[in-house]
Amino acid sequence: MTSNTSGKIFNFTTWGESHGKAIGCVVDGVPSQISLSNEDIQIHLNKRKPGQSKFTTQRKEKDEVKILSGVFEGMTTGHPISLMINNEDQRSKDYSNIANVFRPGHADYTYWAKYGIRDYRGGGRSSARETAMRVAAGAIARKIISHKLKNHYQITGALVQIGSSKINYDNWKNEFIEKNDFFCPDESIINEWESLIKKTRKEGSSLGAVIELRCKGMPVGLGEPIYDKLDADLAKAMMSINAVKGVEIGNGFESVSKTGISNIDEMRIKDNKPFFLSNNNGGILGGISTGQELIVRFCVKPTSSITTSKKTINTKLEETEISTEGRHDPCVGIRAVPVGEAMMATTLADHCLRYL
Amino acid sequence: MTSNTSGKIFNFTTWGESHGKAIGCVVDGVPSQISLSNEDIQIHLNKRKPGQSKFTTQRKEKDEVKILSGVFEGMTTGHPISLMINNEDQRSKDYSNIANVFRPGHADYTYWAKYGIRDYRGGGRSSARETAMRVAAGAIARKIISHKLKNHYQITGALVQIGSSKINYDNWKNEFIEKNDFFCPDESIINEWESLIKKTRKEGSSLGAVIELRCKGMPVGLGEPIYDKLDADLAKAMMSINAVKGVEIGNGFESVSKTGISNIDEMRIKDNKPFFLSNNNGGILGGISTGQELIVRFCVKPTSSITTSKKTINTKLEETEISTEGRHDPCVGIRAVPVGEAMMATTLADHCLRYL
Amino acid sequence: MTSNTSGKIFNFTTWGESHGKAIGCVVDGVPSQISLSNEDIQIHLNKRKPGQSKFTTQRKEKDEVKILSGVFEGMTTGHPISLMINNEDQRSKDYSNIANVFRPGHADYTYWAKYGIRDYRGGGRSSARETAMRVAAGAIARKIISHKLKNHYQITGALVQIGSSKINYDNWKNEFIEKNDFFCPDESIINEWESLIKKTRKEGSSLGAVIELRCKGMPVGLGEPIYDKLDADLAKAMMSINAVKGVEIGNGFESVSKTGISNIDEMRIKDNKPFFLSNNNGGILGGISTGQELIVRFCVKPTSSITTSKKTINTKLEETEISTEGRHDPCVGIRAVPVGEAMMATTLADHCLRYL
Amino acid sequence: MTSNTSGKIFNFTTWGESHGKAIGCVVDGVPSQISLSNEDIQIHLNKRKPGQSKFTTQRKEKDEVKILSGVFEGMTTGHPISLMINNEDQRSKDYSNIANVFRPGHADYTYWAKYGIRDYRGGGRSSARETAMRVAAGAIARKIISHKLKNHYQITGALVQIGSSKINYDNWKNEFIEKNDFFCPDESIINEWESLIKKTRKEGSSLGAVIELRCKGMPVGLGEPIYDKLDADLAKAMMSINAVKGVEIGNGFESVSKTGISNIDEMRIKDNKPFFLSNNNGGILGGISTGQELIVRFCVKPTSSITTSKKTINTKLEETEISTEGRHDPCVGIRAVPVGEAMMATTLADHCLRYL
Repeated sequence: MTSNTSGKIFNFTTWGESHGKAIGCVVDGVPSQISLSNEDIQIHLNKRKPGQSKFTTQRKEKDEVKILSGVFEGMTTGHPISLMINNEDQRSKDYSNIANVFRPGHADYTYWAKYGIRDYRGGGRSSARETAMRVAAGAIARKIISHKLKNHYQITGALVQIGSSKINYDNWKNEFIEKNDFFCPDESIINEWESLIKKTRKEGSSLGAVIELRCKGMPVGLGEPIYDKLDADLAKAMMSINAVKGVEIGNGFESVSKTGISNIDEMRIKDNKPFFLSNNNGGILGGISTGQELIVRFCVKPTSSITTSKKTINTKLEETEISTEGRHDPCVGIRAVPVGEAMMATTLADHCLRYL
Repeated sequence: MTSNTSGKIFNFTTWGESHGKAIGCVVDGVPSQISLSNEDIQIHLNKRKPGQSKFTTQRKEKDEVKILSGVFEGMTTGHPISLMINNEDQRSKDYSNIANVFRPGHADYTYWAKYGIRDYRGGGRSSARETAMRVAAGAIARKIISHKLKNHYQITGALVQIGSSKINYDNWKNEFIEKNDFFCPDESIINEWESLIKKTRKEGSSLGAVIELRCKGMPVGLGEPIYDKLDADLAKAMMSINAVKGVEIGNGFESVSKTGISNIDEMRIKDNKPFFLSNNNGGILGGISTGQELIVRFCVKPTSSITTSKKTINTKLEETEISTEGRHDPCVGIRAVPVGEAMMATTLADHCLRYL
Repeated sequence: MTSNTSGKIFNFTTWGESHGKAIGCVVDGVPSQISLSNEDIQIHLNKRKPGQSKFTTQRKEKDEVKILSGVFEGMTTGHPISLMINNEDQRSKDYSNIANVFRPGHADYTYWAKYGIRDYRGGGRSSARETAMRVAAGAIARKIISHKLKNHYQITGALVQIGSSKINYDNWKNEFIEKNDFFCPDESIINEWESLIKKTRKEGSSLGAVIELRCKGMPVGLGEPIYDKLDADLAKAMMSINAVKGVEIGNGFESVSKTGISNIDEMRIKDNKPFFLSNNNGGILGGISTGQELIVRFCVKPTSSITTSKKTINTKLEETEISTEGRHDPCVGIRAVPVGEAMMATTLADHCLRYL
Repeated sequence: MTSNTSGKIFNFTTWGESHGKAIGCVVDGVPSQISLSNEDIQIHLNKRKPGQSKFTTQRKEKDEVKILSGVFEGMTTGHPISLMINNEDQRSKDYSNIANVFRPGHADYTYWAKYGIRDYRGGGRSSARETAMRVAAGAIARKIISHKLKNHYQITGALVQIGSSKINYDNWKNEFIEKNDFFCPDESIINEWESLIKKTRKEGSSLGAVIELRCKGMPVGLGEPIYDKLDADLAKAMMSINAVKGVEIGNGFESVSKTGISNIDEMRIKDNKPFFLSNNNGGILGGISTGQELIVRFCVKPTSSITTSKKTINTKLEETEISTEGRHDPCVGIRAVPVGEAMMATTLADHCLRYL
């Protein structure tokens, strides 16, 4: 009943605080004889790493991961893989002035009420810094999926909305996603988003975002009824990411305004294999994958760390105000893209090991 | 790793098929010395029971629950509570003509692909009939919450949208919810919804819906970081309900088009206690309850069982067509209201026992 | 975290009290497409059934099992299998005189102290009647093992000691075990055991026993380091049986008086396959099966229900005395044989599904 | 379903290989606001540390533990505590000559068969070096028990038998246990044990041992029926320790040769509280603690690493012989004492958090 653990067969347990000595995780349930190197993990960490663009936090972390166990001569051994990243750029002093003040919109007050402890250093355990280890675990998950499927599959995450500005799906280009600071698939919207973020930052505010995750190449049959349905596990995985307030599969909330006639995915046969004439259900029926592309969206609320002063209280239950001057993302949704991809990978790896 | 079990400390395991002899569940983790009678459970089952209005399925089931263990002289003993409902109105013959055909939009194809078995009798295990046991377990969960909190709390579920027709939140009246066939809190929209359902049924189609769940009276501190956050567990619970395709907390997807300035819930002190000036976050921050009202919404796709003929395939991988003539809900979202309430109750009971 | 559940992938949850309406269990994690009938289960229940010989309790229970779910047209569906046995011969009146008295040596006092409830009817949930459902689950476990291994394997349980009287291992005959009332493999000791039990009963006392379980045909590789070792899981399974006070693997406690030189199982090659020159380790090394015969022993303390009067206390914390006049086994170890076999089967089935 | 994790509410996950860079564990489920320092843990690690006496391995490890997370300003935060010990004296070269040979009596062959990997460096993950982290987790468990009970309790582990030489229980002195190299409570037997070990070492052999664990001060009510009984969990915990082949509670196997009359622990009242006239059941009835002293014994087989040559095979399935020249314990049972104490502490801490 470890609440810091995600997954059942493939699973990982994260530890560490934003401004502690290090953060890390223990990845368990990994089959033996899969090749695994630091680089396999680092490549994904680098996508999420802070300090890379003017649109994300300026905290500088190399985020260099070390593999401490579970790999022998370049191959997994079947035993727990311990990963660690040293924290380097912890400017805890930035936080000393808020040592007793709860930042509104953050977990400061709820953690204090629950644990009776105020770890003011950058949110402590509740910081999104924890998500670095999700990305690391996700990199191992990807190796497991490849190992089990023995064929090509592809997870693609992209930002499809910032504030009220949505992409045009007709412009979607996978290859463009990695070429811009927003993980955006629609080149035509980049200028608008840049202006929007600059403007919002100047106003001392922040923006929310919607992230879409897709996965091609999964077989039919992933997911366990009744309570470990694939969509239920994906929903939990996404909702566990910092600042996420909603998750949907396929057409999601839009399916409500459709009718049964238009929303049902009809089936046909091609080359002796079943296929679907549409994918309104996002590749999941009855909680089990259909073999179609999986489609998941989740939304991230506007960053709660803003430079505008907001009303709040402190640990003495006095009223006060706060504005956040630290190094923060104007839109945490951007860096949530690799985190969402990672959580999709860990969920799929777990279900691959449960089913295949 | 029982995929038919929901919950960690308070938990329940359901069993049974739509057209088997019976359905049931085993509820475990219930503290001793809580009064519990058949009536405590039956009252909630009656809300979900089929055959009650012209807007839901005409299948007639008394849904009379029997308590087989775990209660002695009217009090819980701390041991597993076994509940059972006999199936009575199983017209399996209704299904014999689709014995080899997969109903599109249902789990028929995915279950067959995963298990190699075609239990054609009304969806077998994948049927929403399973949700009766969720409602039964939810009734016990409510007793536990009362027992732990020792004060008043209230779970309210309501239908807030059918098709494209949304309620006016200004008209919300809790007391009206139980007085109409839709669990609708807005009296002014009833006529519109009745017409909409009749029209859709006549067209051989069906409708989706959005359900909103609220819970007043929960303390601050429920939820376990990082992966068993209260919102993550609620998301999983809701997404595990048949036909659900999306879940959101508080402002949910709407928070994306807000800015940080407007979306942050500011804090003040009243009577020496913290309170919030708004509830955009739906009563959860950092995955932990704030003590405010909890607000969750989930959507149900349009019922896949419709009388219009749709393209599909059969177990011999031949192309065919199907229309569903059985007794079905034109909008399964209606009966999802008590199910959603029950899943909220079981999730909260579990977290109450984990924290309090 | 259901404490009434045993197993991880293959698992079962039992419910019911000795004198309630029924007892039952839900067996989950069963692969689909395995043939399963009532008879497959009943045959094992009949071995454990009370009232069969003068050496066990005279309570008469038909112990007729009903399969309520999870089986369709004679085959498992992959969904939970619900089993139920109605209680028929509950003479709860036998217990009314002890309604407030704790039977010493039983769980009466500890259950009352823990739960604040005194279910006096034959021990309620703590009764060994619960083990009937272990035997039922064990029968399904055996089908799973056959299904996974696709070859012959054999679980053999036998009584090897009653009181101080041990069998002569040189006389061990598997085929004799089912031919006597003691599940004894040594024909030469039967008369002695009969006399011993008669004499002990006459003295108003009872006897302990040692049960030995063997399993041939398991592959190398079952068991999960570090904490779910095969021997650790077997130890937990056996120790969870009523009245069991010790468990050992292979030479067990006798290995202490051996030296490393004599206790190491040396290895050789025959027909290109590894084999061992001895089996001091009972077929388990480092928590993982070696492919040799598995050997487990556990001991059962003398039955605590005896006709001799013993000092005890009651729920008012007054001193009193008690003697038990009900229908009891003079040596519960006898009926523990099929229960031990069942727990070995469920543990092995779980590990087969985890590994194979 | 992490097999490298022990415990449910209080739990710890260990990682690391005997000759890897480091070993560590993540301890989760620790309540907040408990004082915790490196010294609290180090004091217990020092008891188990190798290289301390001529009767244990000569490997030199400082075993200096580092706390990497979960503690803020000297107090636990309620978040995972990550502990790490760097490996320093890894003479992996000592093992290069056995890179392809399976040491008989060890897990070498079973691990290779299961994982397809031969990590020859001192047993890799199967090494007893892993138990250092159990001792570290046990130290935290002790702090939790104190925190929950708010009164005195005491766990005492002692060696009561080496080879065939058993202590005289009449000579038991708790205060002597820490004053000798054997954790022996009986001063009169020390000379005999010293001679026995020297003689056995000279003969190129090794010795088994029996360890007895006692715990005073636990309340009535710990343990969860039916499958997470306190004795069942203790049995699993002890059997999971390297080289353990048997576990017993209270009179254990000796209870078999007693009768019900003599083995039942009778009850009386003193100062308005229940007490028992004997403790044959080792403080556990029906799987639940009685409030008496807990008594557990487990046996450790003779060390399998001996200097006498033994028959074995290698990874090419060729026959060969092996003798172990490394730095090994002639009786691993000695260093198993602090490990057994730790596993008792972790099991009790888990049950304290489940019940209290």
